Amino acid sequence: MAKQKIIFDCDMGIDDSMALGTILGSDCFDLLGVVGTYGNVYTEQGTKNAASLLELTGHSEVPVYNGLDHALTKDDFTVLDVSATIHGKNGFGNVALPETENKISKNGVEFLIQSIKKYGSDLTIVTSGPLTNLAEVLRQDSSLVEKMGPVFSMGGALTVPGNVGGAEANISQDPQAAKEVFAKVKDITMVGLDVTQRVILRRGDVAKWREVNPDLGNKWADAVDSYMDFGDKSCPWVKGTYVHDPSAVICAVHPEWFTTLPLYLNVVTEGAEAGRTVAYTEKLQMTDPNVKVCIAVEGIKVRDFLQNAMCEVLK
Amino acid sequence: MAKQKIIFDCDMGIDDSMALGTILGSDCFDLLGVVGTYGNVYTEQGTKNAASLLELTGHSEVPVYNGLDHALTKDDFTVLDVSATIHGKNGFGNVALPETENKISKNGVEFLIQSIKKYGSDLTIVTSGPLTNLAEVLRQDSSLVEKMGPVFSMGGALTVPGNVGGAEANISQDPQAAKEVFAKVKDITMVGLDVTQRVILRRGDVAKWREVNPDLGNKWADAVDSYMDFGDKSCPWVKGTYVHDPSAVICAVHPEWFTTLPLYLNVVTEGAEAGRTVAYTEKLQMTDPNVKVCIAVEGIKVRDFLQNAMCEVLK
Repeated sequence: MAKQKIIFDCDMGIDDSMALGTILGSDCFDLLGVVGTYGNVYTEQGTKNAASLLELTGHSEVPVYNGLDHALTKDDFTVLDVSATIHGKNGFGNVALPETENKISKNGVEFLIQSIKKYGSDLTIVTSGPLTNLAEVLRQDSSLVEKMGPVFSMGGALTVPGNVGGAEANISQDPQAAKEVFAKVKDITMVGLDVTQRVILRRGDVAKWREVNPDLGNKWADAVDSYMDFGDKSCPWVKGTYVHDPSAVICAVHPEWFTTLPLYLNVVTEGAEAGRTVAYTEKLQMTDPNVKVCIAVEGIKVRDFLQNAMCEVLK
Repeated sequence: MAKQKIIFDCDMGIDDSMALGTILGSDCFDLLGVVGTYGNVYTEQGTKNAASLLELTGHSEVPVYNGLDHALTKDDFTVLDVSATIHGKNGFGNVALPETENKISKNGVEFLIQSIKKYGSDLTIVTSGPLTNLAEVLRQDSSLVEKMGPVFSMGGALTVPGNVGGAEANISQDPQAAKEVFAKVKDITMVGLDVTQRVILRRGDVAKWREVNPDLGNKWADAVDSYMDFGDKSCPWVKGTYVHDPSAVICAVHPEWFTTLPLYLNVVTEGAEAGRTVAYTEKLQMTDPNVKVCIAVEGIKVRDFLQNAMCEVLK
């Protein structure tokens, strides 16, 4: 089977790093590039992490681009204290990653535009951060929606509460961008907390990475263990960690493991519910909704896919 | 096929009256009794309406009971202005219904308790108002959850916004009661705005009732037309009216027309989101959730069932 051409648009914290590992470790994807955004970390920290992990896993040929560094409706961005606590100040659990010689290019938005023009519907875009880059792409050239392939986006919460106030963290960073992207993209799957909180990675899985690769495996496991330490305090019932960002990657290749509800999806942009993702009441009678919202998942299959890919990329 | 024994617990406004018509006009149900609650109207107004409609449709043998008249956490209840606008001050679009000789009994909660004890899992309970009566039943005798049959409840909004602030109207009246009922009842289906706003009754359907029965048909159509007048202003895109309460009745006999998501369902009881129905995050990993939340529906089949039953009861 031909590999799926993919661009990964991420704010490279710890679960984003596992999503990258899943892309690299499975044989399903042809990774055209990584585009950075802000959120778990500052844009430039995230792309540094991405470039370093690409080099350490033998994939330094994959180009890395800085995307935008703040929300469309704001002038700047500061990493939230809680993000730095969860992901570490460096976005990798404060585990040091070596600096890379790889050049990080500047214009992630332009890279997305040119890639959509070049590959059209053959290109899959997976996002694991705020939807700012993609919203900007469509503001610059609205005709691209006619050419684009599928988008799989980790973000949002339809049937479950949010994890940052009433909203999910990625959407809460830039509700306006999310609103525009969900309104415009013709084939977009929301892989939100509804399903990512049903996929659990256990400490035993992560321990295995140390055996597979005592250098990078230990580093990566240390980072994920620190991420689990936070989870043990905030969500003690989980006994492991939710699998957020990798679930969006895996949904791109195994959509049949996910149950989806087709909706026209709104994002609340103001007030106490800013960032909430919810159906448009006034569009419930309209046919052919463009957003597939994941509401249930075969969690063990997703977890096993992640674990197999991580072990493979660490070999 | 044996008829389904049913108790209808309602705050008899206009859509509740259509739900009653659906019960009476289909040949699927053996209606054991109607229990009143507050919400669209005061409890005693609603049961008057129920008794009158039962007499007018030739079903005065069905007993009617007043249930509770205010929320568990409150001392009293006042009909909201918006409810009186939508349903009319008398709950029937200000269309006069004749007084009935039928006695309305006092203790609706006791009737529910005795009926559950007598019929056990053979009894279906459909609610179209706040869940106060049912919560009180289970407060008085928690062991009844082991005996109860299925409950179909019109209320709540999972994937769509509420219609009273962030909440759906029935749940918003008594979030605490709803929280208790959704936590305790072992087989409960939430028939909320997610689906009731996908079922549309048109003015043309209602016009037909006038031909079928120039007396009661005209009265009932006048009431529903006034209900549609309000909808034309508040939801002009509908071109008819949402079918709220009858959908819960129809779900009890045709669950296969409804797509459900099994969840452990929480009800927010305080703050700006009071009355919101949303999954318990910390229970997503638990098996066998007790609440089936309706998220999609074959709306035309439900509408046709309603229309056929209404024409039948008016014959």
